Amino acid sequence: MGKFISFEGLDGSGKTSVMQAIQARLVERLGADKIVMTREPGGTPLGETIREVLLADAAKTMDPVTEALLFAASRRQHVVEKIQPALAKQQWVLSDRFLDSSLAYQGGGRQLGVETVQAINAVAVNDCLPDLTIFLDVPRTAGLERIQKHRQNQVNRLDQEQADFYERVRATFLTLAQENPARLVVVDATQPLAEVVAAVWQVIETRL
Amino acid sequence: MGKFISFEGLDGSGKTSVMQAIQARLVERLGADKIVMTREPGGTPLGETIREVLLADAAKTMDPVTEALLFAASRRQHVVEKIQPALAKQQWVLSDRFLDSSLAYQGGGRQLGVETVQAINAVAVNDCLPDLTIFLDVPRTAGLERIQKHRQNQVNRLDQEQADFYERVRATFLTLAQENPARLVVVDATQPLAEVVAAVWQVIETRL
Repeated sequence: MGKFISFEGLDGSGKTSVMQAIQARLVERLGADKIVMTREPGGTPLGETIREVLLADAAKTMDPVTEALLFAASRRQHVVEKIQPALAKQQWVLSDRFLDSSLAYQGGGRQLGVETVQAINAVAVNDCLPDLTIFLDVPRTAGLERIQKHRQNQVNRLDQEQADFYERVRATFLTLAQENPARLVVVDATQPLAEVVAAVWQVIETRL
Repeated sequence: MGKFISFEGLDGSGKTSVMQAIQARLVERLGADKIVMTREPGGTPLGETIREVLLADAAKTMDPVTEALLFAASRRQHVVEKIQPALAKQQWVLSDRFLDSSLAYQGGGRQLGVETVQAINAVAVNDCLPDLTIFLDVPRTAGLERIQKHRQNQVNRLDQEQADFYERVRATFLTLAQENPARLVVVDATQPLAEVVAAVWQVIETRL
């Protein structure tokens, strides 16, 4: 079996840049055909359709439970159609977000409760949990600055939420890390990119 | 509070015709502004978008759990945005399919198990169950003939499933009726339409 690594963090935490750097190192080490890059919501044709529904401006009336169910639907298809087949082919799967995002954003941020969101996702994920989850931690202000710098005109529905929402999300990620130390590692993402990448790489080398 | 009635049955059971006739009688009795006609999946703008995703031919690779989660997402939005507000305004809601369809089609038909689908839907439905559910029962052959007669060029993904799938769905509906006698009533829908409507009307008058 291959290895499954998920990357978590608030928008603006530098997730994309870090993932690209880690991908480059893993390709060098294992070969390009051993590395699968993917993301949530999305990762499959159906999942990308669901992603569009979730991120559409028209969906501002969306109930938080509806939202959690749509993320879980995208995730299920992702697991069955993409992640599990890749792992069975000894590939390494690097996913931009996975289960913990739902627990933190819908469970913590939208206050559905982590247990409720876990219940919705239990059937979706089954036992396909990441071998390792990296939480790129930035205080909210640093994250906001990066969003404003990089995608001024692409602020989506989640971006528009209030600052206290993001505080709850971050607090939930940190709690999840405390509760799942064998899987979830917090990396300080306020450091310069090269140092964040070095820290993540060290975690991967040590743990996997 | 108003009343919530769901209509269930295999495609081709005459659900639409029966609902229209019952709607007409209820409008006569209570006034047009007291009756809300709706359907699942769908019933809201977001729900109709999810309906398109579910019924699209492109979705033939859809995992059964993904399907169950999408139906539940549509249902949640339906409950929060349409059904509960209507009931609060003393309206009667007549829904073409509701929770029991998921239990029968995904739980029984796709063999996820009624309990698994119930778990997925528990958060979605919360305590918003119909006051009355009518199951229009036809043996599979009668249902197929009606589909072929009425919508030759509109056979959708679910229509294409095997006959044993429909047998499992019907059996699950009948079991649900046995287990929920206070809410779920089976009506023989092989009778002429006028007699089916009369039978359904009698159930409504007796129970509500």
